Amino acid sequence: MDRITLESPLDMHLHLRDGDTLTLVAPLSAADFAGAVVMPNLVPPIDALDALDAYRARIAVACDTARFSPWLTLFFRAYSHDELAAARRQIIGVKLYPEGVTTNSAGGVRDLRGIDATLEHLEALGIPLLVHGETHGFVMDREREFLPVYRRLARQFPRLTIVMEHITTREAVELLGEYDNLHATITLHHLLITLDDVAGGLLQPHLFCKPIAKRPEDREALLHAALTGHPRVMFGSDSAPHPRSAKEAAGCAAGVFSAPVALPALAELFADRDVLPMLQRFVSDNARAIYRVTPPLRRITLERVPWRVPDHYGAVVPFGAGTTLAWQVTARA
Amino acid sequence: MDRITLESPLDMHLHLRDGDTLTLVAPLSAADFAGAVVMPNLVPPIDALDALDAYRARIAVACDTARFSPWLTLFFRAYSHDELAAARRQIIGVKLYPEGVTTNSAGGVRDLRGIDATLEHLEALGIPLLVHGETHGFVMDREREFLPVYRRLARQFPRLTIVMEHITTREAVELLGEYDNLHATITLHHLLITLDDVAGGLLQPHLFCKPIAKRPEDREALLHAALTGHPRVMFGSDSAPHPRSAKEAAGCAAGVFSAPVALPALAELFADRDVLPMLQRFVSDNARAIYRVTPPLRRITLERVPWRVPDHYGAVVPFGAGTTLAWQVTARA
Repeated sequence: MDRITLESPLDMHLHLRDGDTLTLVAPLSAADFAGAVVMPNLVPPIDALDALDAYRARIAVACDTARFSPWLTLFFRAYSHDELAAARRQIIGVKLYPEGVTTNSAGGVRDLRGIDATLEHLEALGIPLLVHGETHGFVMDREREFLPVYRRLARQFPRLTIVMEHITTREAVELLGEYDNLHATITLHHLLITLDDVAGGLLQPHLFCKPIAKRPEDREALLHAALTGHPRVMFGSDSAPHPRSAKEAAGCAAGVFSAPVALPALAELFADRDVLPMLQRFVSDNARAIYRVTPPLRRITLERVPWRVPDHYGAVVPFGAGTTLAWQVTARA
Repeated sequence: MDRITLESPLDMHLHLRDGDTLTLVAPLSAADFAGAVVMPNLVPPIDALDALDAYRARIAVACDTARFSPWLTLFFRAYSHDELAAARRQIIGVKLYPEGVTTNSAGGVRDLRGIDATLEHLEALGIPLLVHGETHGFVMDREREFLPVYRRLARQFPRLTIVMEHITTREAVELLGEYDNLHATITLHHLLITLDDVAGGLLQPHLFCKPIAKRPEDREALLHAALTGHPRVMFGSDSAPHPRSAKEAAGCAAGVFSAPVALPALAELFADRDVLPMLQRFVSDNARAIYRVTPPLRRITLERVPWRVPDHYGAVVPFGAGTTLAWQVTARA
């Protein structure tokens, strides 16, 4: 198979940022995807409807939202039932960050035991909970150490749709098998790289992200889930642009900018493993079923035609900059 | 104790480089240390006596070798008995790099099973073998995976002095207990940092080195060995200068430049643990016994007086740049 047409591919974890960066990156996502779950960790975070509405308006200026649905999220805090009931139709979920675990999460949750009232409202209202699941432990252990929190949430709120965002470990994949209300997004880069690629040769700041890339056996487990079309696993790029000056620096910001290369790289990955037809599930069908969303109808065709990834998009260096992928998007309808 | 005078401190693993960098860094080591084991991984590597002699002459131009002994090493290759017999009085050891494991190791050993003849010569001639002990495996496993090689060498060549350079793991410390002919150097930075410091918050290219910093329990084992004056453990900074432009870049070179901050930082570390008198063993006495060397008599006095680490030395950013250490060198005799 040297060609595939994807129906309404979706990116279920995306950072669109704001200002000039939003203007730069939103059209790149909108070109290839029919919809995306947009993260709320701006400065200040989006945690009220007026800020959400204003952000939606800025996104609509930056790209064509008739062809690309930006599904917005609220930044987790203690919300009342009324607040969430009012927000329900305008958000796809609420994103929980433990305090300080990643970029712009300073206002996150300090005490995970104090959030049950808000979770009850989410469950009652049918609003998904999206979670950055890391502790403050040793960097290679943070996701594994967080898994007991997922277990408690899954057990205590059995009707709550919980999405373990950007999972990176074998143990997180295995946890999906324990509770029907647990789901996960997986990024492109965690399917392709391990810590070896970040720090095994020269140090590669453009591959530095949170959660950090893990061990080969972890990547294999992620690959298995994605390539076999695991029904509770969705593609979420976690594409997170930073200007080159913030990446190639002492104190390099975490984040891999992958939005414009995601579909070609995924097509190459799935094709190389002879499971290209499974890509439709991973980049669209599973997400539609889990979130019960209906994206704009788009048809994105990819073909096995070499494509050199640009060295940069404006001030931002993309994942795989300057390398040649075997696939490219050849038609966008 | 707010003051200590060290007698002839030694740095048993040092990169002096060549050219302008040699001119910049050699005086900084010579200021604080009475001697140092100088690594041979220049481009091309120092693997012949004429190159060694020429390098020694360049070092003598760069610093005062009457007060600072540069103990040179040859880059490991298949040497004849005659070659090593001729080199014996001019080198402190032979440094073995597996091919491609670190900076300028492209000419290293590809097949570790084919080196026995040379090792027999080293053993017969009483020349120490210094080893960069890493495999080509996953970055966090490379040292542990190499330990069986150390075991084989220690068993097969019981009279060979083997130095496990810049050890970073608990298992390597434990291995010292198994064979009397195994020794180790430990760097300053591996006593102070873990992978969390490199990649747990923002990514810190100036803390990126090979072997990469490991887990908290590994650092604790290294600290225990150093602070208790383990007789087969020596300080070796592995101070490895790169220009800032090669560190704050896509594809950051491995190496921490610690030579000018090593003694103040070690004094602070040992004093904070109430074992300041043990520092003499770690930075001098153990090395003199293991290598049977007699360095120039120097007295370096450190006092608990705050010292701000310079932001840079020329083009090179030191370990701890811009931070304030609680100790400083106050007299150099």
